[in-house]
Amino acid sequence: MKKSPLQIARAAYQPKVPASIFGGNKLVEGKATESVADQADIKKLFPNTYGLPIVTFEKSDTAVAAKAINVGVILSGGQAPGGHNVISGIFDGIKAINKDSKLYGFLGGPSGLVDHKYIELTSDIIDEYRNTGGFDIIGSGRTKLEEESQFDKGLEICKKLNINAIVIIGGDDSNTNACVLAEYYLAKKTGIQVIGCPKTIDGDLKNEMIETSFGFDTATKVYSEVIGNIERDANSAKKYWHFIKLMGRSASHVTLECALKTQPNITLIGEEVEAKNQTLDDVVTYIANAVKARADKGLNFGTVLVPEGLIEFIPAIKKLIQELNDMLAANQAEFDKKSVDDKIKFIIEHLSAENAAIFQSLPAAVSKQLALERDPHGNVQVSLIETEQLLAEMVAKKLAQWKKEGKYNGKFSTQHHFFGYEGRCAAPSNFDADYCYSLGRVAALLINSGKTGYMSSVRNTTKPASEWLAGGIPITAMMNMEKRNGKMKPVIQKALVKLDGGPFKFFASKRDEWAIETAYVYPGPIQYFGPTEVADITTETIKLEH
Amino acid sequence: MKKSPLQIARAAYQPKVPASIFGGNKLVEGKATESVADQADIKKLFPNTYGLPIVTFEKSDTAVAAKAINVGVILSGGQAPGGHNVISGIFDGIKAINKDSKLYGFLGGPSGLVDHKYIELTSDIIDEYRNTGGFDIIGSGRTKLEEESQFDKGLEICKKLNINAIVIIGGDDSNTNACVLAEYYLAKKTGIQVIGCPKTIDGDLKNEMIETSFGFDTATKVYSEVIGNIERDANSAKKYWHFIKLMGRSASHVTLECALKTQPNITLIGEEVEAKNQTLDDVVTYIANAVKARADKGLNFGTVLVPEGLIEFIPAIKKLIQELNDMLAANQAEFDKKSVDDKIKFIIEHLSAENAAIFQSLPAAVSKQLALERDPHGNVQVSLIETEQLLAEMVAKKLAQWKKEGKYNGKFSTQHHFFGYEGRCAAPSNFDADYCYSLGRVAALLINSGKTGYMSSVRNTTKPASEWLAGGIPITAMMNMEKRNGKMKPVIQKALVKLDGGPFKFFASKRDEWAIETAYVYPGPIQYFGPTEVADITTETIKLEH
Repeated sequence: MKKSPLQIARAAYQPKVPASIFGGNKLVEGKATESVADQADIKKLFPNTYGLPIVTFEKSDTAVAAKAINVGVILSGGQAPGGHNVISGIFDGIKAINKDSKLYGFLGGPSGLVDHKYIELTSDIIDEYRNTGGFDIIGSGRTKLEEESQFDKGLEICKKLNINAIVIIGGDDSNTNACVLAEYYLAKKTGIQVIGCPKTIDGDLKNEMIETSFGFDTATKVYSEVIGNIERDANSAKKYWHFIKLMGRSASHVTLECALKTQPNITLIGEEVEAKNQTLDDVVTYIANAVKARADKGLNFGTVLVPEGLIEFIPAIKKLIQELNDMLAANQAEFDKKSVDDKIKFIIEHLSAENAAIFQSLPAAVSKQLALERDPHGNVQVSLIETEQLLAEMVAKKLAQWKKEGKYNGKFSTQHHFFGYEGRCAAPSNFDADYCYSLGRVAALLINSGKTGYMSSVRNTTKPASEWLAGGIPITAMMNMEKRNGKMKPVIQKALVKLDGGPFKFFASKRDEWAIETAYVYPGPIQYFGPTEVADITTETIKLEH
Repeated sequence: MKKSPLQIARAAYQPKVPASIFGGNKLVEGKATESVADQADIKKLFPNTYGLPIVTFEKSDTAVAAKAINVGVILSGGQAPGGHNVISGIFDGIKAINKDSKLYGFLGGPSGLVDHKYIELTSDIIDEYRNTGGFDIIGSGRTKLEEESQFDKGLEICKKLNINAIVIIGGDDSNTNACVLAEYYLAKKTGIQVIGCPKTIDGDLKNEMIETSFGFDTATKVYSEVIGNIERDANSAKKYWHFIKLMGRSASHVTLECALKTQPNITLIGEEVEAKNQTLDDVVTYIANAVKARADKGLNFGTVLVPEGLIEFIPAIKKLIQELNDMLAANQAEFDKKSVDDKIKFIIEHLSAENAAIFQSLPAAVSKQLALERDPHGNVQVSLIETEQLLAEMVAKKLAQWKKEGKYNGKFSTQHHFFGYEGRCAAPSNFDADYCYSLGRVAALLINSGKTGYMSSVRNTTKPASEWLAGGIPITAMMNMEKRNGKMKPVIQKALVKLDGGPFKFFASKRDEWAIETAYVYPGPIQYFGPTEVADITTETIKLEH
């Protein structure tokens, strides 16, 4: 593997960790917890892992000699910067506890546990991946651990390898499943512990005790770098409106964070569109009004940030998609055989009158995409809709109409961009390198303390790393009951953008000014060296939330 | 203007310059030059600026007291990182010569000179823009300075502001026009000098004496950062082929440099496609073969780099576009009135049989784009063709056919990207910050030496900046005669990728290995601080050329 000069220099970086987990430390148990909602239901489903206390590690003089620990680690779901550092943190953590400890990596995601595909992660391997981006050390995958037969297959390999604990590095669903697995292994008295780690660039796995999911910091910095560069280009060439879609699934955290960093003219927040019950035309009109206001000042350029999940948040379209998913699931075999035109006809005939009308009102490219592209579960693939192009086209149409009516007299040329894959595997920022490595070290301590059904937690992250608080949060405490595929399930509550939260409120207080003025900020690329205010600060989101 | 922490830290950076231009220096004249071709024609067109000697600045103890100089500066054409540093270099240079010197910036490109739109650039303004990206200090524009009436308007404002010299920062065409202007002002004995500076991220303005155009280093670093991140994602998720189109107009330098930095599976070089007289199907087959070879090894993912200008280099399509441009120009009024379907019909009816057949063989989206999108000169807008999507679709079609025939048994899912605006206004790398500032300082020295029709030159750039060679190159020496809009014109010879040059030859020796193996390199983001091998190295292209 040929390495770039930066990779070589970066390999030597020693991540910073909370002072409390270095040298001797002791575990302090807090009060028993309750789930965030549906307490009775969750308690019934998790009799052994419900109500556990939050735990914290504090500095202590008495270093405890401990037995060797064998751990199996799994990367689950989409890539996020810092995954390799979680793994190196676990490795160093269990080796610090006892040098004979072993770390196994299950290959290609959760399916590696079920199919018994694994490697032993030795120091030679680990050292190649410290402070690097990507999940390529063992690969990731999207298999869901949900069936008891899968759990039993996992048990087999754990017994064979003498594995004491599994660490699952994943998003909300993967951590939910980690807890189901912990409960199952506890009920069966297998002695195998399960610990989760909060991963996702989307930023939607967080709560009072988990301040952020890892990767969010790095990914939003990469996106903000290129958004800033595009803004500077817009302000230099003065001839394009740039429509920029950003990854983040249904939550708009990524878009909001990038907006706080770069101050674009327009930022759409899906959660607000839903709360205000806006239509697609409302959104288009909102943008067109800003374009007009800037054109009146002679500014025929601008930037618009669009969250990937926007379309789903428009209530009318959300309803349409729900009915479409249910209808297509019920008629899949018949539907799949039809030609494109017949598929569209079939949809219109089988939807309710209200949703058929909305379906027919969409631009042809979008209705076609809704009809044709389906994920492996048969669901409409909302993420494939090129919302940034759709909006640009609809705004152009509206402005052309306004021009005819004499209400608008500017120029409107557009460029569109979609950023996602550009940031998921970036080398972690200093923050994510430190945060992830600490999460891994804390996971090792939780395992050594015999804990299971916990998520590794590192808090107080707006302070220097030495002051961070380390501990574990019972996963059941984050759960509520939600409908999934027609059934009520216990799941970790997804953290959407809170319209009464600090980040949104700050944004909302500034956006009218940003819309009309050219108030762009140019963050530039992630710096790994240089002054601390350049290289070590984390997100505006965390700052405004805490 | 709110500044990011990096911008604030970066403002303090003092660009490095050649030792020879610091303190006292003297101008040394070399031998008289000849143009690269068509010497008699060029000499006839440029009687006053033809045959001038190359000049070099050497260190000297005798500092010469000099008069104040007033300079007007123009940014011409597309943005490139470092433009602001050229301007700050000119500013510091003329102030070092005499503190009463003044710098004027013409606004919005060359039209600012003609329309008398300008500002005086004071130290307060200059200090806000040191080491920043963008051309927003005075804006840029694409007006061509070609007419004597424009030159005369320029003369008026120069006389009014007592301007001694104009510096035009631009690409090959803008520098050609700078020389035409220099010749005109010399012939008219106006006393106004004109100096050019080599700008373009495309990297196609270079020759023996001009090692690189500024911005190429920074832009290719930004693109390589995100390409590397995508490669790492591809290698982690192992499920997508990423098709990545890169800016660079007709030359493939940007794509080649990014390939040398990131080692993707497939890289297309337009100049090679042309030299080998390849068809679109040849290109598609070449990619499909690599996809198949990797699939045979179980690797159903990869990365493909596509230069923006690829389509134009495919000889058959180039001929089609030429005939299309001529035919549409001759029938513009009639054509513009037609509906979309009628336009396509009209084209097919009016093209030669051979080109009509090629037009009809193109995917519908491409033929439609060729028919509909035209630039202000009436030309087909090749840059709008989404080549990366076109190729992905055509490769998918071919693989589906091979699957039917039992020749291929892999999975082929694609993602596509286009990077251009992401890099043109990035804050300049240390190299571009130093190089641009030096170009500006050298421009000031050339003016002080009474030179006109010269391009500012800084050579020996693979060495530390202190060892760089500073001087000036007569612009006529870079010229030849080419057909433009049907007429023979003197122009600076465009530097396309040389298939017998170091960069291409190195790439060609490695590409078969890169196609099959996963040999990705992850350069990471531009570092402004940190070790010199991380922060200060320039392009692979320059290294392999010198």
